[in-house]
Amino acid sequence: MAYPTTMNSTLSRRERNKLEKRQRLLAASLLLFREKGYAETKVADITKAAGVAKGTFFNYFPTKEEVLLALGEQMLGKLHQVEAKELFGQGLVQDKVKALFHSLASGLDEDRELLREMVYRGLRLPDLISKERTRLDFRAMLALLLQQGQRQGEVRKDIDVDFVADALFTLYFQQIVSWCSSDFSFSLQDRLDEVVDLIFDSVAVR
Amino acid sequence: MAYPTTMNSTLSRRERNKLEKRQRLLAASLLLFREKGYAETKVADITKAAGVAKGTFFNYFPTKEEVLLALGEQMLGKLHQVEAKELFGQGLVQDKVKALFHSLASGLDEDRELLREMVYRGLRLPDLISKERTRLDFRAMLALLLQQGQRQGEVRKDIDVDFVADALFTLYFQQIVSWCSSDFSFSLQDRLDEVVDLIFDSVAVR
Repeated sequence: MAYPTTMNSTLSRRERNKLEKRQRLLAASLLLFREKGYAETKVADITKAAGVAKGTFFNYFPTKEEVLLALGEQMLGKLHQVEAKELFGQGLVQDKVKALFHSLASGLDEDRELLREMVYRGLRLPDLISKERTRLDFRAMLALLLQQGQRQGEVRKDIDVDFVADALFTLYFQQIVSWCSSDFSFSLQDRLDEVVDLIFDSVAVR
Repeated sequence: MAYPTTMNSTLSRRERNKLEKRQRLLAASLLLFREKGYAETKVADITKAAGVAKGTFFNYFPTKEEVLLALGEQMLGKLHQVEAKELFGQGLVQDKVKALFHSLASGLDEDRELLREMVYRGLRLPDLISKERTRLDFRAMLALLLQQGQRQGEVRKDIDVDFVADALFTLYFQQIVSWCSSDFSFSLQDRLDEVVDLIFDSVAVR
C-alpha cells in the first residue's frame, strides 16, 4: 500500500518531521512496553529510547495512555503475512476474510499481555468506530472484499457492504475483548472463523 | 422478573439498606443529569436529592463518571412496554427480537443527550461484555429466545445460542454508538431491524 508515501509527498518538511517523530515515539513505546511492561515504562524512558527531548512527548500525546491507544489501533488493523495481491486474487471471499482475520489474530497472539492492557485501559469501540481513525484501512478492505464477492456472484447484490463490513469489524473487536477477558481460554482463530461463517451464511447467494 | 425480590430475601437488613441507598443515588442522578446536564450536576446535588450524607456517595461510587456508567448499563438493558409474556408467547422469534430491540431503542430515544454522554465518557464494551454485569439479563433473554426458535423449528439446532446472543448484543451496542456519533442521523429502530435480519438470515432454518 503506497498510502504513506503518497501522503508524505504532499507534506512540508516540517510536517514530515512531525510524523516521523511520532512514529519513532510509537515504535520506542512498543519495544519498551513489551520489554518492561506498560506500568513500569516511564515517559522519560520512551523519549530517551526514541532520541527526542522529554518535553516533546506531550506535543504528540497528552498521556502515556494515549500512546497505548494509538498502538492498539495500529495493532488491531495491522496486516501480517497477507499480501494485498493474495486478497484480491482468485478464490472465495469468505476464505479471504478468514485469512485476513487469521493474519490479524496471529499478530495479536504475540502481544497478549500488552493487548489486554490496551483493551482495559485504552481501546474503546466509539473511538474505533469513528471514521477518522486508522482502522479505516481494515474496514475499507473488508468492504472491498465484499464488493468483490458481489461481482463474482458469491455475495448477495442487495446487501449494504459498508453495513456488513462494520458488523464484521465490530464482531472481530468483540472476540478480542472476550479473548482477553477469558484469559485467552479459547482459540481466537477458531472463534473468528465462526464469526465469518455467521455473517457469510447470511450474505451468501443461495 | 422476580430476581431482585428473591435476591433481597437472602440479604441482611444492612445489605438491603445499602442496595436501596445505591438505587436512590442512581435515581436522583438520572433526574438531575436529565434536568441540568451531566457536567452541571455536582456530587453534592445528587446526595441532597437522594437524601443521603455527602460523604456517603463515595462508599457507593468512586467518581461521578461511575454513576453515569451504571446508569448506562441499566438503560441499555432496560425493557419498556414489552412484557415477558409477549416475548415467550406465540410467533416468530425473529419478530420478537425486533420488538425487544424496538422497545430498548424507544427508551433510549428519550435520553439522547445523556446517552451520548454515556457512550463517550463511560460505557466500554469490555465492561458490558464481562459476565458479572447487569446486561446479563438482556443477553440471557436473547439466548432464551434463540432456544425457543430452535424448539419451534425456526432457528437451526446446530448454532451456539450464547455465541449468537453475544453477537446480537454487540451489534446492538455498535449501532447505538454509531447513532450517537452520527448525531442521531438515522433511524435507530430501522437499523436494529437490519441487524436482526442480518443475523437471522444466517441462523434461520431453510
